Amino acid sequence: MELQHLPYILDTFFAIFAMTLVIFMVPGFAMLEAGLVRTKNVSAVLMMNTMIYAVASFMFLLIGYTVAFGGWENGSMSVYAAFLFQMAFVGKVVNIMSGGVSERARVIPFALFTIIMASFLYPIAVNWTWGADMLKETVFDISMHDLAGSTVIHSVGGWALLAAILIMGPRKGKYTKDGKIRAIPASNIPLVTLGAFLLWIGWFGFNGGSVGSISSKESADAVALTILNTNTAGLAGAIVAGIIMYLKYKKLDITMILNGALGGLVAITAGADLYNIYEPIIIGAFGAVLVVFAVAFFDRLKLDDPVGALSVHLVNGIWGTVAVAVFASNGEDITLLNQLKGIVIIGVFAFASSYLVLFLLNKIIPLRVSAENEYDGLDISECGLESYPEMIKSKS
Amino acid sequence: MELQHLPYILDTFFAIFAMTLVIFMVPGFAMLEAGLVRTKNVSAVLMMNTMIYAVASFMFLLIGYTVAFGGWENGSMSVYAAFLFQMAFVGKVVNIMSGGVSERARVIPFALFTIIMASFLYPIAVNWTWGADMLKETVFDISMHDLAGSTVIHSVGGWALLAAILIMGPRKGKYTKDGKIRAIPASNIPLVTLGAFLLWIGWFGFNGGSVGSISSKESADAVALTILNTNTAGLAGAIVAGIIMYLKYKKLDITMILNGALGGLVAITAGADLYNIYEPIIIGAFGAVLVVFAVAFFDRLKLDDPVGALSVHLVNGIWGTVAVAVFASNGEDITLLNQLKGIVIIGVFAFASSYLVLFLLNKIIPLRVSAENEYDGLDISECGLESYPEMIKSKS
Amino acid sequence: MELQHLPYILDTFFAIFAMTLVIFMVPGFAMLEAGLVRTKNVSAVLMMNTMIYAVASFMFLLIGYTVAFGGWENGSMSVYAAFLFQMAFVGKVVNIMSGGVSERARVIPFALFTIIMASFLYPIAVNWTWGADMLKETVFDISMHDLAGSTVIHSVGGWALLAAILIMGPRKGKYTKDGKIRAIPASNIPLVTLGAFLLWIGWFGFNGGSVGSISSKESADAVALTILNTNTAGLAGAIVAGIIMYLKYKKLDITMILNGALGGLVAITAGADLYNIYEPIIIGAFGAVLVVFAVAFFDRLKLDDPVGALSVHLVNGIWGTVAVAVFASNGEDITLLNQLKGIVIIGVFAFASSYLVLFLLNKIIPLRVSAENEYDGLDISECGLESYPEMIKSKS
Repeated sequence: MELQHLPYILDTFFAIFAMTLVIFMVPGFAMLEAGLVRTKNVSAVLMMNTMIYAVASFMFLLIGYTVAFGGWENGSMSVYAAFLFQMAFVGKVVNIMSGGVSERARVIPFALFTIIMASFLYPIAVNWTWGADMLKETVFDISMHDLAGSTVIHSVGGWALLAAILIMGPRKGKYTKDGKIRAIPASNIPLVTLGAFLLWIGWFGFNGGSVGSISSKESADAVALTILNTNTAGLAGAIVAGIIMYLKYKKLDITMILNGALGGLVAITAGADLYNIYEPIIIGAFGAVLVVFAVAFFDRLKLDDPVGALSVHLVNGIWGTVAVAVFASNGEDITLLNQLKGIVIIGVFAFASSYLVLFLLNKIIPLRVSAENEYDGLDISECGLESYPEMIKSKS
Repeated sequence: MELQHLPYILDTFFAIFAMTLVIFMVPGFAMLEAGLVRTKNVSAVLMMNTMIYAVASFMFLLIGYTVAFGGWENGSMSVYAAFLFQMAFVGKVVNIMSGGVSERARVIPFALFTIIMASFLYPIAVNWTWGADMLKETVFDISMHDLAGSTVIHSVGGWALLAAILIMGPRKGKYTKDGKIRAIPASNIPLVTLGAFLLWIGWFGFNGGSVGSISSKESADAVALTILNTNTAGLAGAIVAGIIMYLKYKKLDITMILNGALGGLVAITAGADLYNIYEPIIIGAFGAVLVVFAVAFFDRLKLDDPVGALSVHLVNGIWGTVAVAVFASNGEDITLLNQLKGIVIIGVFAFASSYLVLFLLNKIIPLRVSAENEYDGLDISECGLESYPEMIKSKS
Repeated sequence: MELQHLPYILDTFFAIFAMTLVIFMVPGFAMLEAGLVRTKNVSAVLMMNTMIYAVASFMFLLIGYTVAFGGWENGSMSVYAAFLFQMAFVGKVVNIMSGGVSERARVIPFALFTIIMASFLYPIAVNWTWGADMLKETVFDISMHDLAGSTVIHSVGGWALLAAILIMGPRKGKYTKDGKIRAIPASNIPLVTLGAFLLWIGWFGFNGGSVGSISSKESADAVALTILNTNTAGLAGAIVAGIIMYLKYKKLDITMILNGALGGLVAITAGADLYNIYEPIIIGAFGAVLVVFAVAFFDRLKLDDPVGALSVHLVNGIWGTVAVAVFASNGEDITLLNQLKGIVIIGVFAFASSYLVLFLLNKIIPLRVSAENEYDGLDISECGLESYPEMIKSKS
């Protein structure tokens, strides 16, 4: 063993460890979304999750990584490990969407959209921020601090989801003609809980791995602080969502508690490495407040998002990126203006390009299933098999 | 990279790895308990698990860690990683309770109890054993060997649970007036199995990480031996529980097999680093025997514990701590007296303080839901949503 | 810390990390199989998985490891870590069987078979390939390249399963007298999906860990490349299975997509360290094609395999071992003849010895439950408890 390679070895090992945790978010998203939709759409949402994850990762291997980073080169660790860690992220962007479009979306157009998203749209956003930086020395140069992607991952996924929801419209029966909002209960609460905790654990790799190195005392401290702060924001989000639920309804709705935790986790993602150990409490707590009110807000706008993904990922992606400028206390040159500039440029690009691609795709292959298939459930029309065929259902 | 920091880096990385495995025990406990209770209480037990885990971890950040260790200092690894590993443990103490009080416990008083437990009671027990040691040079000084907490974690959680069960009483209908014990079947066996295996895997981090270092040849061997012995005790527990079930009933009850494995895992936790590779077979096998008979024993005492947590965690926590004195063969200065002294001091403290706090809390906010809410299920009264709303139930 | 021990420390840590991932395959197999069988057999298949996993690991500790490697010695890492990693593999061999024999197999004879398999049959196959090599300098000496066991693990498990299926026969009603094949739907699709992703993640440890070291720049690269290639084959398998399903049925059957991914993962296992980053696409894609057609092929032969394990593990185990000779491009001395020789010798040995042992066992304790117990479901007769007792079933 040659000692000069030790950082290379350690950082490769650490990237593999972190990547593995991030991949746990794939079953995490799948279980969360399968638990939140109705029984008749469970197989379809699992299939959608699996297919767009596979397509996204595959296209990132063929095209996206090169678009983002300019080529397969990496000096500080094995390029294969560096690729794996980055590849694990692209699946998140599309899995954020799959829940929000569920119970009405067809898989083929979204698989085609995923090809564009994972080959070009997301890699361009990465290029501008963490990557080769083609905007350097232009007026659009982005210099925000976004450690693990409150904006680059979560908002990009959220903006794409918003575009899809605007084009597809809400589920039949969600918003009645007399202006009422119909509550559609989650079908399987243990799956929701399992999925949320797999996401939470995956976030340790997501944020911790984004520090990029563990091979010095300083970077080891940064990794551990980042994971600690990530966890604290999740804790604060869960507790505050619980308190709000109790004050409003005297019940502690577990799905809202878990979404509060996830909101806190999204919010901490931009700057987990820069806060002291108490600031994440405020950032996560406010993230949970945002989730609770944003869920109601989007419903009032008739933006039907069955799993609350806009509230968790888009709203808190923005909040998390702003929070860096408000709280980051370690003397880096971080300004609110730089953070906002990043949010706006990435947001406009992600929303406009996603809207355009989805709009065109919708003309060729409708994004949405027929009303009849929606009524019968997508498990039959999209997937060809029921999720729990032996259980008698009490309602459609 | 400066080579003198290499142990710091390696041990930080290893603590993060071990902590991550321990956090898998959170969904582990949640799935195990959600599978073991009846359908009408599944959402509530998931919510209880999530809330008290979040509150416990949060209070340990604010108060508990300082009470246990005297301050945020650590020389041998990043203090953030050291904290994270310790924080992962406190959630276990309260998650041990959540199953045993399920199907009748309200979340608010147990969340308040968790504040006391995670801020003071558990940290004091840690202080006396692994921490700053405020009892040093007093007559109560504890010098038992308890690697990863057969006593400090599992018995403390078990004693607190026993206090809660004594105060709350059994579920309605569990023990009939004519002296019969009603079997209440688990509602979802795949969740029980998933939860048990997540716990089993988490135990590798729990015990392996408790060695505290991997940065020398000796410590690397100790970590690997500890994990090997941990696993062996789980294997022996599963097999012996299976054999007992087959001999008694000609059927292999999977819930008892899994509880046998968990009993073996609790029993090995105190001394996994000290045994040769065969002794864990005896320790785990006897742990499974204890679980099988303790389940029946507590039922005869009308101590109603829906998931068998007293048998797994309290009984085997004691057995595991005693086993160190019986089997540990590596020449350390371990005596049965020292082990028993630790068991008694920690036990008296944990039971008495938990009983007192829960007793007072019960006067202010009853620990137990109303008989009507218990009959209807806690999902509605505590959580506000059903666990599987579309499945028709065959019985309440 | 003594620097000359650094490779020992790093490789021990890495083996523990890899082993932990492989153990996630235990709940992976359990959830996959529990989701694929009918509700009335779910507890039984979970119990079978747990018992034979425990027995296999236990016997490997007592006997198998010594048979395979000639003794408990290892210079390059802690022997306990080396053992743990190897032990994690033996459970896979028997867990491959448990799904294929499900819905009709009794646990006791298969637990007894597991004792033979884990003590002798599998360890002998390891001895000949990765181990002490008792065939060295004989005409049967095997010099195939099989990194992580396309042949040694997956085909061995598959051959043993084929022997069991031949002896036991198909489930009642699977093949009707008029030559029709009855489709028996999976009972729980989220469990199938969760299980498949746990297996997928476990494969990173399975193949990555089989490189055996991460403590040099070259081995770190080899580990990262191996994991990258493993993942790529899974992605390609999922996508190609999806495309075939869509072309044939205009539906994307999620269970076939996941089996396609698993087929790709089995196929890449023999040579993931030797391919460039694009060759796994072809290997995984062809693996998925094989799975889709092999499932129909085995059904035509009335070889009833409820979970498709023969198609995934046996067929792709062979294909993956052949693929090394076709694609491996790094100049090692790999020939098609050597690969085929390994496949044949291991295959003849595994099938013949498994058939013999199972045939004899079947004379003493029938492998199969009674027709009545099969009709009522094995949960009652084998396990003594139902999997979801509160859910009304729509059919037996």
